[in-house]
Amino acid sequence: MKLGTLADRLGCRLEGTGVDPDVEIRRVNGVDDAGPGDVTFLANPKFAGRVATTRASAILADDSLVSAPCPILRTANPYVACASAVALLTPAVQATPGIHPQAAIDPSATLGAAVSIGAFAVIGPGARIGARTVVYPHVVIGAGAVIGDDCVLHAHVSVRDRIEIGHRVELQDGAVIGSEGFGFATRDDGTHQKIPQVGIVVIGNDVEIGANTTVDRPAIGETRIGDGTKIDNQVQIAHGVKIGRNVRIAGCSGVAGSSIIEDDVVLAGQVGVMNHVRVGRGARVASKSAVLSDLEGGKTYAGIPAIPIGQWRRWAVKFRRGTS
Amino acid sequence: MKLGTLADRLGCRLEGTGVDPDVEIRRVNGVDDAGPGDVTFLANPKFAGRVATTRASAILADDSLVSAPCPILRTANPYVACASAVALLTPAVQATPGIHPQAAIDPSATLGAAVSIGAFAVIGPGARIGARTVVYPHVVIGAGAVIGDDCVLHAHVSVRDRIEIGHRVELQDGAVIGSEGFGFATRDDGTHQKIPQVGIVVIGNDVEIGANTTVDRPAIGETRIGDGTKIDNQVQIAHGVKIGRNVRIAGCSGVAGSSIIEDDVVLAGQVGVMNHVRVGRGARVASKSAVLSDLEGGKTYAGIPAIPIGQWRRWAVKFRRGTS
Amino acid sequence: MKLGTLADRLGCRLEGTGVDPDVEIRRVNGVDDAGPGDVTFLANPKFAGRVATTRASAILADDSLVSAPCPILRTANPYVACASAVALLTPAVQATPGIHPQAAIDPSATLGAAVSIGAFAVIGPGARIGARTVVYPHVVIGAGAVIGDDCVLHAHVSVRDRIEIGHRVELQDGAVIGSEGFGFATRDDGTHQKIPQVGIVVIGNDVEIGANTTVDRPAIGETRIGDGTKIDNQVQIAHGVKIGRNVRIAGCSGVAGSSIIEDDVVLAGQVGVMNHVRVGRGARVASKSAVLSDLEGGKTYAGIPAIPIGQWRRWAVKFRRGTS
Repeated sequence: MKLGTLADRLGCRLEGTGVDPDVEIRRVNGVDDAGPGDVTFLANPKFAGRVATTRASAILADDSLVSAPCPILRTANPYVACASAVALLTPAVQATPGIHPQAAIDPSATLGAAVSIGAFAVIGPGARIGARTVVYPHVVIGAGAVIGDDCVLHAHVSVRDRIEIGHRVELQDGAVIGSEGFGFATRDDGTHQKIPQVGIVVIGNDVEIGANTTVDRPAIGETRIGDGTKIDNQVQIAHGVKIGRNVRIAGCSGVAGSSIIEDDVVLAGQVGVMNHVRVGRGARVASKSAVLSDLEGGKTYAGIPAIPIGQWRRWAVKFRRGTS
Repeated sequence: MKLGTLADRLGCRLEGTGVDPDVEIRRVNGVDDAGPGDVTFLANPKFAGRVATTRASAILADDSLVSAPCPILRTANPYVACASAVALLTPAVQATPGIHPQAAIDPSATLGAAVSIGAFAVIGPGARIGARTVVYPHVVIGAGAVIGDDCVLHAHVSVRDRIEIGHRVELQDGAVIGSEGFGFATRDDGTHQKIPQVGIVVIGNDVEIGANTTVDRPAIGETRIGDGTKIDNQVQIAHGVKIGRNVRIAGCSGVAGSSIIEDDVVLAGQVGVMNHVRVGRGARVASKSAVLSDLEGGKTYAGIPAIPIGQWRRWAVKFRRGTS
Repeated sequence: MKLGTLADRLGCRLEGTGVDPDVEIRRVNGVDDAGPGDVTFLANPKFAGRVATTRASAILADDSLVSAPCPILRTANPYVACASAVALLTPAVQATPGIHPQAAIDPSATLGAAVSIGAFAVIGPGARIGARTVVYPHVVIGAGAVIGDDCVLHAHVSVRDRIEIGHRVELQDGAVIGSEGFGFATRDDGTHQKIPQVGIVVIGNDVEIGANTTVDRPAIGETRIGDGTKIDNQVQIAHGVKIGRNVRIAGCSGVAGSSIIEDDVVLAGQVGVMNHVRVGRGARVASKSAVLSDLEGGKTYAGIPAIPIGQWRRWAVKFRRGTS
């Protein structure tokens, strides 16, 4: 794609050193690795010092970048523009619409227009799959499950019976939606009686769920994941958890039963959230922390138990020095 | 189901305000969310204050509850009664017995009476499946594996060759039983030689194993999980671990090689147990803790390393105050 | 196998009490559990005291073992010899070469000599599978993926499109190679735009990857795992991570985006490594630790954040005593 066309598509002003709108741009690359034909980006001011030596053919940057050895594509949010540039420059792998002859689709299931159903996929009785949704090989969708339009379900995903999934949802390989929550009542003899987990999971629009992540259904009611929320690999969401909108949860984290994660929260990697707690809107929890009680929104926390991060950093200074 | 019938089935005394044994009960619901037609429960005295305002048609409670705005179903263990009520009021999804024509079953495998085998399930040579066991689509059972009666294996479960599983065992989606333990001997040049993991896994009766949980086989002997033990999602049980009876292990925990978890132990979420340690009978370990040495039974522990929880709480007070 | 033959095959000197090279050895077993017909081993001097009472028919040991109640097979590295002995004494389960009639193999895929492809395996367009590689049932291999010779891919493994895997690689059940990295750019309205993850994963020779472990692909470039590296179950390797040679990573650990793990590093169980950090050659990190900044090679670390282990041990003494 020509540099001028890329600038137009991204809505960027093209300026700076040696602008030639006809130069061919082939891919996005990091500031150190980029060469001719690459567009790079400056999303973190920490890396501004490296721009002077980049060999890229152009750079996405906001107004804080004064000069560069290549043309600058000006944009208010270089990281979002970078995401768009990757999408524009990379020929998306398009699944071919159609139904593989070796899929097992119940006659009572409903398939939307232009769906793509892979080999050995199983779609249960009464399930509904939205238009243009891609179901990769080896996905299993249970009876009565509802999946929206333009979703992508990668190989080996399980969606259990009656689960509800919105539009534009992407489930990475091996994700399990609607497994049975860990609910047992202990009898007087010390054995444990299962509480049947017959509730459902409801997932909003524009949600991403990572590889081998698990989302349990509850005994009663719903486990809910709000619109725009992104969950990484190997995360465990327990029964009855309510997750708001635009939340991000990084890999290997776990949220225990019935907890509430409000909108815009960020949980870094390997975070644990205890059962029956509330993490307030926009709170951020540093990696490896344990949330053992309610957290007020809008602040950043770290530690086991999680405390305000400034306080944790003071503790960590002492811990590193050997004086804690 | 009529309230009087429910009381009979649960073995509860029906008493209190406005008893009408003919009122129709449709489901179990939480004390705050319940409405007409719902039965609720008081299992935790912490929530007793909320009973006065419940709109439920009946409540399961022990003798500690003095009064309620609805009839009381008296029972010594309201949480167990609640589990039973969910089972009674929810029409269980029954898998239809039969063998899907697209399953791949080795002719030398043995199938019990009234089994249900789903699409694309694979059952290896010499494997034996007990009566009424349900094998969901995409389960793979290895050569010579033995699975008891009345088990449920959800989609994408792997049971490797020669594994032995008891009766009434439930394996959630994507669980792996019998993968090869992480055993390597380091050669003098720093490369690692695999120790073939040719032992087996033996799982008792009435065990539940969560979604994407993994249980490794050892080089020698057995990895063992005792009767009545319940394991949550994404738990890792390493090679040669011995787990007793009625143990509960919550999500994202890991038990390293050759460790022993005695009967009735509870490990909360994200707990780690080091290799070659013993957790004594009835010990409880709080979430996010690390068991780095043997723990005496009957006590509760927390922390990294795990210490008695009272002591950990004193430390946590100082940590929260910034004085640790 | 006769004891004399075993000694020859392992390159061991046979000496000590009552040597009869014609005694039949059937298996390897632990020093306490071994009986007649078993060979045991002394790999850890900690267990030397137990040798006197072993009932084994022979023991693998180095020169530090003075005497034993049975013949001694002398070797410089008893644990490596033990690994070899298990391999020699256990009839390896050999997958039969051939292609299951119910596999779905794209006509443009290339299969090496003597491959074994299991039931319901899916091999995408242009994929290449090396000679003698075993693909168990329910493995899904994406378009253009390349897998070397003598690999073993267990059931339910996903290898996404264009992934490159070397020779003699073993992937345990449910491992996912090439799922999409967790990369999002946050728009001004707080929603998150996906950065397409179109890079690849490159795995070297002689690598083992555990059950339900996930290895993400990056937006740009490669995620790399070097020759001889061994990764346990339920480990998360994020997008753009570079892992060197002969690294060992134990269960439930996670390495965040773009971090570098140099050769010979050992990460114990449940370790977390933050994004954009470097763990130097031969560093060892104790279980449950969090690596939040670069670590110098050749040393051992523990703690959250990870500090030199001697210092951590001093802290742990105070923590256990209640004086930290």
